[in-house]
Amino acid sequence: MSRTLVLETLEKLNETVTLKGWVQRRRDLGGLIFIDLRDASGVVQVVFNQDHKEATEIADTLRSEYVIEVTGEVVKRDPSTVNENIQTGELEVVADSLNVLSKAETPPFQIEDDAVSEDVRLKYRYVDLKRQKLQDTLRTRHKTTAAIREFLNNEFFVDVETPFLSKSTPEGARDYLVPSRIHHGEFYALPQSPQIYKQLLMLSGFERYYQIVKCFRDEDLRRDRQPEFTQVDIEKSFTDVEDMIDLNERLLQYVFKEVKDIDVEIPFARMTYDDAMLKYGVDKPDTRFGMELVELSDFSKDVDFKVFKSTVENGGIVKAIVVKDSADKYSRKDIEALEEYVKLYGAKGLAWLKYNDGAFTGPIAKFFSEDKQNELKEILGADENDLVFFGADKASVVNASLGNLRNKLGKELDLIDEDKYNFVWITDWPLFEYDEDEERFVAAHHPFTSPKEEDIELLETTPEKVKANAYDIVLNGYELGGGSIRISNPELQEKMFKALGFSEKQMHDQFGFLIEAFKYGAPPHGGLAYGLDRLVMLLTKTDNIRDVIAFPKTSSAQDLMMDSPSNVSNRQLNELHLQIKPEGK
Amino acid sequence: MSRTLVLETLEKLNETVTLKGWVQRRRDLGGLIFIDLRDASGVVQVVFNQDHKEATEIADTLRSEYVIEVTGEVVKRDPSTVNENIQTGELEVVADSLNVLSKAETPPFQIEDDAVSEDVRLKYRYVDLKRQKLQDTLRTRHKTTAAIREFLNNEFFVDVETPFLSKSTPEGARDYLVPSRIHHGEFYALPQSPQIYKQLLMLSGFERYYQIVKCFRDEDLRRDRQPEFTQVDIEKSFTDVEDMIDLNERLLQYVFKEVKDIDVEIPFARMTYDDAMLKYGVDKPDTRFGMELVELSDFSKDVDFKVFKSTVENGGIVKAIVVKDSADKYSRKDIEALEEYVKLYGAKGLAWLKYNDGAFTGPIAKFFSEDKQNELKEILGADENDLVFFGADKASVVNASLGNLRNKLGKELDLIDEDKYNFVWITDWPLFEYDEDEERFVAAHHPFTSPKEEDIELLETTPEKVKANAYDIVLNGYELGGGSIRISNPELQEKMFKALGFSEKQMHDQFGFLIEAFKYGAPPHGGLAYGLDRLVMLLTKTDNIRDVIAFPKTSSAQDLMMDSPSNVSNRQLNELHLQIKPEGK
Repeated sequence: MSRTLVLETLEKLNETVTLKGWVQRRRDLGGLIFIDLRDASGVVQVVFNQDHKEATEIADTLRSEYVIEVTGEVVKRDPSTVNENIQTGELEVVADSLNVLSKAETPPFQIEDDAVSEDVRLKYRYVDLKRQKLQDTLRTRHKTTAAIREFLNNEFFVDVETPFLSKSTPEGARDYLVPSRIHHGEFYALPQSPQIYKQLLMLSGFERYYQIVKCFRDEDLRRDRQPEFTQVDIEKSFTDVEDMIDLNERLLQYVFKEVKDIDVEIPFARMTYDDAMLKYGVDKPDTRFGMELVELSDFSKDVDFKVFKSTVENGGIVKAIVVKDSADKYSRKDIEALEEYVKLYGAKGLAWLKYNDGAFTGPIAKFFSEDKQNELKEILGADENDLVFFGADKASVVNASLGNLRNKLGKELDLIDEDKYNFVWITDWPLFEYDEDEERFVAAHHPFTSPKEEDIELLETTPEKVKANAYDIVLNGYELGGGSIRISNPELQEKMFKALGFSEKQMHDQFGFLIEAFKYGAPPHGGLAYGLDRLVMLLTKTDNIRDVIAFPKTSSAQDLMMDSPSNVSNRQLNELHLQIKPEGK
Repeated sequence: MSRTLVLETLEKLNETVTLKGWVQRRRDLGGLIFIDLRDASGVVQVVFNQDHKEATEIADTLRSEYVIEVTGEVVKRDPSTVNENIQTGELEVVADSLNVLSKAETPPFQIEDDAVSEDVRLKYRYVDLKRQKLQDTLRTRHKTTAAIREFLNNEFFVDVETPFLSKSTPEGARDYLVPSRIHHGEFYALPQSPQIYKQLLMLSGFERYYQIVKCFRDEDLRRDRQPEFTQVDIEKSFTDVEDMIDLNERLLQYVFKEVKDIDVEIPFARMTYDDAMLKYGVDKPDTRFGMELVELSDFSKDVDFKVFKSTVENGGIVKAIVVKDSADKYSRKDIEALEEYVKLYGAKGLAWLKYNDGAFTGPIAKFFSEDKQNELKEILGADENDLVFFGADKASVVNASLGNLRNKLGKELDLIDEDKYNFVWITDWPLFEYDEDEERFVAAHHPFTSPKEEDIELLETTPEKVKANAYDIVLNGYELGGGSIRISNPELQEKMFKALGFSEKQMHDQFGFLIEAFKYGAPPHGGLAYGLDRLVMLLTKTDNIRDVIAFPKTSSAQDLMMDSPSNVSNRQLNELHLQIKPEGK
């Protein structure tokens, strides 16, 4: 008899069906045995009674997670026993016959027990994956990629696969390497992104490309990232910033409708990078709540408070955030905890003031004259019971500490409407950022990002001022994706490499073939790449990246289930011409 | 003005449009300049005349592969100048204005020149990819995966991504390894297939899984395979052989209809592995033509021809193929060439007879008595002008040499209807094959394939006789994919590993977690994996695997464009705790 899925029983009242699935729960009640039977579509109650002795005898041996095949009639439950927690709760199946397909030992932990440590869950991932939440997130992930593909296919984008055995390049993060057996001492690298390949596809006239593809970065341990992550990679020819923004707004609108049935309004808000840093201190602002940063550098030039004054004199900045009507919520001890928090972002301390009974109070209040206090109240819009936090340091430290403090307080004070989806484009990015370790400018996005036309002349003189045709899409404080219009002129590309400190030889060795490729007819082109893991995290409202990946790695890049990485045989090492150095050398 | 695609001009007669694309060709004719403008959608003729002097002056500077933007009116061509080779051949665009977006140097070779060596093409792959054939095959590849996804999504299969940084296992082909930086001396392996992961997903209750995913094998050079290849990977719970065959027949029918508009009839033919070897000598028979192998071992027991007789006495076999009405087409020299060919498959020679004027002729004819000649004629159904080739050796050599000779002759003699799509399922595979190098039985498919119920008792005594619940789908002599119903019982899985010669320790170290996983409620399950590259080769009728891959590697696994694999820095090696052995050691 052909199998009926659990959810299909809804349509089969009074019919005889055969169900297959797992025993979720067994209860015995006055000669009756009740089984909650689970399959991929849902859960239904099966009843074994004494009219079918043989089946009921077998049912008596059932334990959790046994895999069974049951045949029986679908009947309406007595109204008093309806289970409103499951979709089939008004029905039950009265079993005629039962067949055990597979027995099960007691699993190493209760499947839905949230107290189990993540390491144990990861070791028994195949048990953990039975959890409803993981079933749901992975199915949502599938719906998400299906919706993305559908949208892009309809827009005539071509899904082209690019190589995994690629080449190591000096720019960007650390590569994972793959030793070659055939070519002694040589290595492939796993791609950090298909950037170069997709640009070459534009040169070849494919015009519209996409791929949903794994990328790899051998990151430092302290960042809780997965060594392999999935990118939704898009590239288009004959495009510009407006066109790319329009395409991606329609794409995201489509995805949110298909996956979550949420109507997202387009066009999205836009904000320049400079504005985001000014008002939010971070390049991925969460705009679901206010508490914007207030610039106080001008104000601080003539205060008596030396910390502020000298910071500004030495080229630093002073900013504040105002926590409305919350002075009474934060004790000194609470504030000390917040001070520890901002120190994570390089701040040396956390100055604060409260506004109570028409005046600022707090340890630094005394450093401000009455006039300056009035001026401050004016600038901050301070009001009764407001709490003000200050940052005074170089700009990067002030922005990072106050920007992140703002996010933390927004969550703590429940200022965030979790049903909101606030998309915002961050535009006009700097083309370069200064790498203090390497003491040189590096590409803020990557070296193929085009500078704004009007800034090209600054490339050789004041690179820090050059803005890029780059755009990131930010949702609720998280970067969903980013992209740019690329350089399509080989001379400009050479100029860019030079500004990045490449010698002629380095440029030729690493990117010679690419610069040459641009000489045979390069269309203007641009693209965008989404982090799929992050997108699915936002769609499923989970904070743990491991919830959206079927077989994730730990933060030290281990697979606890497979026990990987692992030792390999000497034969394998010999074939790859490799020796392992003794530890500690 | 917004861009119009070339093909959209068909709908825009007498309208003014802006086209963007590449200069395919320029001709000057009596003060007029004609440009063939190409974009991703097609080619259209653009005319520059003296009414628009400025545009025509710029047009005069155009060369092949320049990227341009042209605005002009779509008009009907004079009937005498219609170009029937292009879809827009009845139209042309009379240009008002022209803008050069990007100049182009002369490409390193003429794009459509077939005489250019493949190495040069691969080095300049971005130029080669402009070839219409490659554009078409890669777009067909996209259509193929889109159709597969659509079908499987509609059947409620869930696309789940599995890890690329996986674990090295001793079974199967050679792994590509990825050294770990964090875990000294340890390695990941790139997956040869997601086999274990997809089975774990079945244990977790996903029930229906698919993935279109890259897999990796570090193959020997002599096989012209790509080191990375794409697999369409499918797994289903609560299935059996009939259900899997039905699912995949409907899938292939859908794909051929969507991609090629070809109606494929289902159900497909089926053939046991033993039958395929008997009649075709290979496990992937091309059934588009006859010329089946004829078994002559019984016949040979009492012939005077010692080669045949002693072969059979020593446990070998004798078989023949009859090439109808072709004796006059093959000279001795031609036959000697065929003899060289079968030697590639281990044959020591190639005995033959011709049938002419009612009798067999040829060097071995004298070894057969008149009675035996009559018997032979009868068995072979030999007729005037037939040519007979014989194989006498151990079975594997006879089958391989005659089976491949049959395919070669089928092509040479034009016996194959290239419009036919002959699908055939090969079933009832042996579970094991004997590995002569390792002197042990290895899994013919993989160690998770289930034996036929009735053969389980043979596992420990005569493994060579055990048949598997395995099936391959073969199209026109090529294996498209293969799969099996898996072992879902942990005790049987242990038995299987033991039959493969695993010690308790090896089994525990390598697959302990998997055997354990099966103890927590394993549904019966099975699956199938297609080689996507091969499928697209058959859909696009190309013999060269590199035609269906955007950025392929050479047969020595090199990327000639990127120059990969390549040397890496000492810093990188140090981080990975690796040293390269001197060459020759």
